[in-house]
Amino acid sequence: MQWTKVLGLGLGAAALLGLGIILGHFAIPKKANSPAPSDLDLEILETVMGQLDAHRIRENLRELSREPHLASSPRDEDLVQLLLQRWKDPESGLDSAEAFTYEVLLSFPSQEQPNVVDIVGPTGDIIHSCHRTEENVTGEQGGPDVVQPYAAYAPSGTPQGLLVYANRGTEEDFKELQTQGIKLEGTIALTRYGGVGRGAKAVNAAKHGVAGVLVYTDPADINDGLSLPNETFPNSWYLPPSGVERGSYYKYFGDPLTPYLPAIPSSFRLDPANVSGFPPIPTQPIVCSLGCPVNVSIYNRLELRNSSNVLGIIRGAMEPDRYVLYGNHRDSWVHGAVDPSSGTAVLLELSRVLGTLLKKGTWRPRRSIMFASWGAEEFGLIGSTEFTEEFFNKLQERTVAYINVDIAVFANATLRVQGTPPVQSVVFSATKEIRSPGPGDLSIYDNWIRYFNRSSPVYGLVPSLGSLGAGSDYAPFIHFLGISSMDIAYTYDRSKTSARIYPTYHTAFDTFDYVDKFLDPGFSSHQAVARTAGSIILRLSDSCFLPLKVSDYSETLRSFLQAAQQDLGALLEQHSISLGQPRVSKGSGPLQVRMLNDQLMLLERTFLNPRAFPEERYYSHVLWATRTGSVATFPGLSNACSRARDTASGSEAWAEVQRQLSIVVTALEGAAATLRPVEDL
Amino acid sequence: MQWTKVLGLGLGAAALLGLGIILGHFAIPKKANSPAPSDLDLEILETVMGQLDAHRIRENLRELSREPHLASSPRDEDLVQLLLQRWKDPESGLDSAEAFTYEVLLSFPSQEQPNVVDIVGPTGDIIHSCHRTEENVTGEQGGPDVVQPYAAYAPSGTPQGLLVYANRGTEEDFKELQTQGIKLEGTIALTRYGGVGRGAKAVNAAKHGVAGVLVYTDPADINDGLSLPNETFPNSWYLPPSGVERGSYYKYFGDPLTPYLPAIPSSFRLDPANVSGFPPIPTQPIVCSLGCPVNVSIYNRLELRNSSNVLGIIRGAMEPDRYVLYGNHRDSWVHGAVDPSSGTAVLLELSRVLGTLLKKGTWRPRRSIMFASWGAEEFGLIGSTEFTEEFFNKLQERTVAYINVDIAVFANATLRVQGTPPVQSVVFSATKEIRSPGPGDLSIYDNWIRYFNRSSPVYGLVPSLGSLGAGSDYAPFIHFLGISSMDIAYTYDRSKTSARIYPTYHTAFDTFDYVDKFLDPGFSSHQAVARTAGSIILRLSDSCFLPLKVSDYSETLRSFLQAAQQDLGALLEQHSISLGQPRVSKGSGPLQVRMLNDQLMLLERTFLNPRAFPEERYYSHVLWATRTGSVATFPGLSNACSRARDTASGSEAWAEVQRQLSIVVTALEGAAATLRPVEDL
Repeated sequence: MQWTKVLGLGLGAAALLGLGIILGHFAIPKKANSPAPSDLDLEILETVMGQLDAHRIRENLRELSREPHLASSPRDEDLVQLLLQRWKDPESGLDSAEAFTYEVLLSFPSQEQPNVVDIVGPTGDIIHSCHRTEENVTGEQGGPDVVQPYAAYAPSGTPQGLLVYANRGTEEDFKELQTQGIKLEGTIALTRYGGVGRGAKAVNAAKHGVAGVLVYTDPADINDGLSLPNETFPNSWYLPPSGVERGSYYKYFGDPLTPYLPAIPSSFRLDPANVSGFPPIPTQPIVCSLGCPVNVSIYNRLELRNSSNVLGIIRGAMEPDRYVLYGNHRDSWVHGAVDPSSGTAVLLELSRVLGTLLKKGTWRPRRSIMFASWGAEEFGLIGSTEFTEEFFNKLQERTVAYINVDIAVFANATLRVQGTPPVQSVVFSATKEIRSPGPGDLSIYDNWIRYFNRSSPVYGLVPSLGSLGAGSDYAPFIHFLGISSMDIAYTYDRSKTSARIYPTYHTAFDTFDYVDKFLDPGFSSHQAVARTAGSIILRLSDSCFLPLKVSDYSETLRSFLQAAQQDLGALLEQHSISLGQPRVSKGSGPLQVRMLNDQLMLLERTFLNPRAFPEERYYSHVLWATRTGSVATFPGLSNACSRARDTASGSEAWAEVQRQLSIVVTALEGAAATLRPVEDL
Repeated sequence: MQWTKVLGLGLGAAALLGLGIILGHFAIPKKANSPAPSDLDLEILETVMGQLDAHRIRENLRELSREPHLASSPRDEDLVQLLLQRWKDPESGLDSAEAFTYEVLLSFPSQEQPNVVDIVGPTGDIIHSCHRTEENVTGEQGGPDVVQPYAAYAPSGTPQGLLVYANRGTEEDFKELQTQGIKLEGTIALTRYGGVGRGAKAVNAAKHGVAGVLVYTDPADINDGLSLPNETFPNSWYLPPSGVERGSYYKYFGDPLTPYLPAIPSSFRLDPANVSGFPPIPTQPIVCSLGCPVNVSIYNRLELRNSSNVLGIIRGAMEPDRYVLYGNHRDSWVHGAVDPSSGTAVLLELSRVLGTLLKKGTWRPRRSIMFASWGAEEFGLIGSTEFTEEFFNKLQERTVAYINVDIAVFANATLRVQGTPPVQSVVFSATKEIRSPGPGDLSIYDNWIRYFNRSSPVYGLVPSLGSLGAGSDYAPFIHFLGISSMDIAYTYDRSKTSARIYPTYHTAFDTFDYVDKFLDPGFSSHQAVARTAGSIILRLSDSCFLPLKVSDYSETLRSFLQAAQQDLGALLEQHSISLGQPRVSKGSGPLQVRMLNDQLMLLERTFLNPRAFPEERYYSHVLWATRTGSVATFPGLSNACSRARDTASGSEAWAEVQRQLSIVVTALEGAAATLRPVEDL
């Protein structure tokens, strides 16, 4: 079947139905008409903004990053206690706090047999051994708690073979080598970070018979060409020559043994031998050295470990069954000053300021606020995923929005927000009112728009929000539960650096001094993030009408439809489905307010279809699932089209295109149905 | 692994967690303390009870069953118009009414080539042809609109073979024949209705190489031994000798071409050749004749047809976004006076009485009431299933309960209710206040308890509710959407008849006179059902606090756990998880009321797990999915255990037992979490 035919037929029919459901843009009832019983209090907002203290964030960070705190390590457990103590403090604590522990499958290098990569000379003798640890530059890179660089979940094994340079280890990279006539069977592939996910490098390599994979950080990708010892940390923010990025090489997220089930003692666990998603061959991150042949000896072990989430709750005064959820992970690879302690330092300062107002009796929000410190994120968003599995229905029915601040500050230049369309307006409202930490008298919003912007058909030039992938703990909330989510950070001026990410990412050089000296001296960017997040939390928890603008989904839908039209077939201009803001029949009494708010909160849920992508674990959001197809439209449609492109009409692949199209149409109709006057179908 | 080990481990661990979540039984706040702004009005209730008119129900039935109205037939379309006209009536109509049409795959006998079953003599000549139609006894069994008896969705084909009597066509029946050394390959199996589902007879037969299946109604199963013409209709309620039961032989429900998608024009449709769930071999219901060999000629055809649901809505005054949904199907096999017009006659009388109060301005319910007339139920609950697919999220988020009245009156003896535990108390409250139609001064409740009762550990002797299978349109609501549901009818005194079902079920003898003369002369049982349903609708839509008693789930859970314990392994007595009624923190303002009601409404949803039974289409309710295992406990667990019983420890079947156990535990924990104080996790 032809592209054009499929799409014309499908979207054409959709549009016919769509016409029936086009909604005008109804405004939220004027609040002036009937004063709401409780609404955002601007004085409280100002108080909170004023009390968020850069110095205290700095002290939080110092304490949090004092020692390495790998997931499930004793120091990680100490931090659980620190969080509980802070959140139970009689002066500045929350209403309640509790740790929730899961037993999950993690992966560590052996204590007895470190992973080894040796370069072998022509006579079989070892001519070079790769560093097993990073150089102890600041005194923090030594000691038993600094975990050796390793590829978490890579299998153990001792492959030996010729070294082959495979660029970034993409599918194309290996095909290119094959085209060049290079024999890959039994080799050790040397790849650099970037391009594809970590685990994908080993998956791609194994398909060509490669026996082992080494991964290194190319200084060109991270250090803007400056890699001499005197040009790098502790003399600058650049990565020292011995730095190696650790990371999880697991394909999915959540505990590998308990997909879709919480990792509680009673839950069924897969046999680790049958788990899918682990790298198929031994893999190890190293500092780059070229030469050949190579002996690789990997002794990683899988271990069941306890890992805890800590949850702290402020009870809502009027709608305690509506949750504004704010979280970050706690575990790091080594000291993790940037990743994730910068976020946790902000989290603790936010909870302190709000907790103090609470304990003084000055304030209690309309809705409940939940603070979360997630465990074992670095191994694959494990703590947050198990949490969503355990409390699936409750969270899905009651959560207003999820706010994630993981790495609070990558750099000092500008705010960067990823999120779904309904959160755009509340982020704009918050950032317009907060001063930017840089020079000049700009708001965070006005500074932000200089770095990330787009031309909106509705609003003109506005800051652009990125879309949410699966890079941090927001993933289970948006993809699995369909909760409107956002991720907030301060970040780079891209004209000043080409670093793939901040240079010491996942290395033993990500320390307090690194942040304090290079990333955010004075902690004003941390403070800016705290204020932004704080203002958003207050607006979501205290506003009478939820500040979620679901009609902002219309731009996304329009662009998805346009992409389908331009790049995938001949579609009629008028074939768009528009989503208006819902309207309240009359009045603004407490029940009318709640009805409208439920429509706003639940709109995101209408895009979930747990049967849409049976092969993609957890992904069920029809608009934001992973897109591998090149056309920037509905991901299921784009991916199905990309797979069907070279198959014959009537193939199963083309049937899947039609199925994906139906799923999109049904989701859009469902969304429109949710926004129609509530007494209609 | 041992039974005892698996269960001991799993439920033991569950119980440890369970202890942490045991909730006391908190009462709903006393209404006396603070009068609710709107509540069930007893005067309105009495008015409605008084106005539900047996004579009008009789007139409705006469009109509805005047002509055959097979799904998608012109007369079925006429009835769509009749419903729209009634529900839009200016004096007695509803706020709005609309038809929703789907294009679905139905199955009909060929007009040109009727299905034929011939008995062949020793010389190959036809010695007997089975009747193709029923005898025209009352003048209503003739005419072009009386569809020939057939097995809907059975494939066409002309198998010829020796006739083998296979009892009820169960798996065991065919195994027994095999044990007796009877060759089944290429035979025609003669089976009688009952024992297993219609389609299962053909599935079982085909596994043994049977070429065709005939199905007949055994007079012993339906007529209490009375089958002479003068002993049967129109002289009694018994089935005349020529009566043949029609029916759908499709395994699943919903439109066969669009599983999980609404059958709207844009939806992807499976290739009919790839549809699973149709009978594998030609099948035909007949009047029983024995002899051999037989030629069977089946010419059934699949056709895409339009079928409509009609929805009528009364807008709620205070909570228009909460729906009390009441429905029945409209389509019949022939005249369908009992099935389904007795239910539709009640539906129309209920909507008339409520509509009249509404139009007079006397009354408007607190919540919205939706009346539904479903299309194509007889072919596999198609209209209601497509409706739940189209409005999945909206209905799941907002529907308080679904009430089904299909066959309103099977017989005159007693009420019979099937439903999930939360609806028990509202059915009891309603039926205690309504006089039973029989002799004496009993309430419906007091009469009911004489026929169906059980000893409840909590309440003592009470009427017993049956559990909901998939016999009518409640199935997609309870199994797919997880909405608390019930099915209401008047039925037999089982001591007076052994009829499998009312004798003329799905035949051309199910006519108005049949009801008027034998089933319910005077229509007082119809009136009793109308009053019961009406009272339940009013209680659910008008009560301030929803009259759903979720704590009544505790008895079910206890019995499931006990069955697991007694029959499946050694479990500790104290290992029960109890579900209390939720509690409201304080006050009974509109928001507190709504919060409590949301907990009540959504409790049923917490038992849904769309990934629990991947092979069972639509079934996702962890407590009420189909149970084939013999132990009366959680169906997934029971079924998995039954499959694992004869396999070795460590088999995949035993892993599935553990997985099912985890699913149960997670669902129970989720349910408990939903009922805890709303600000807790």
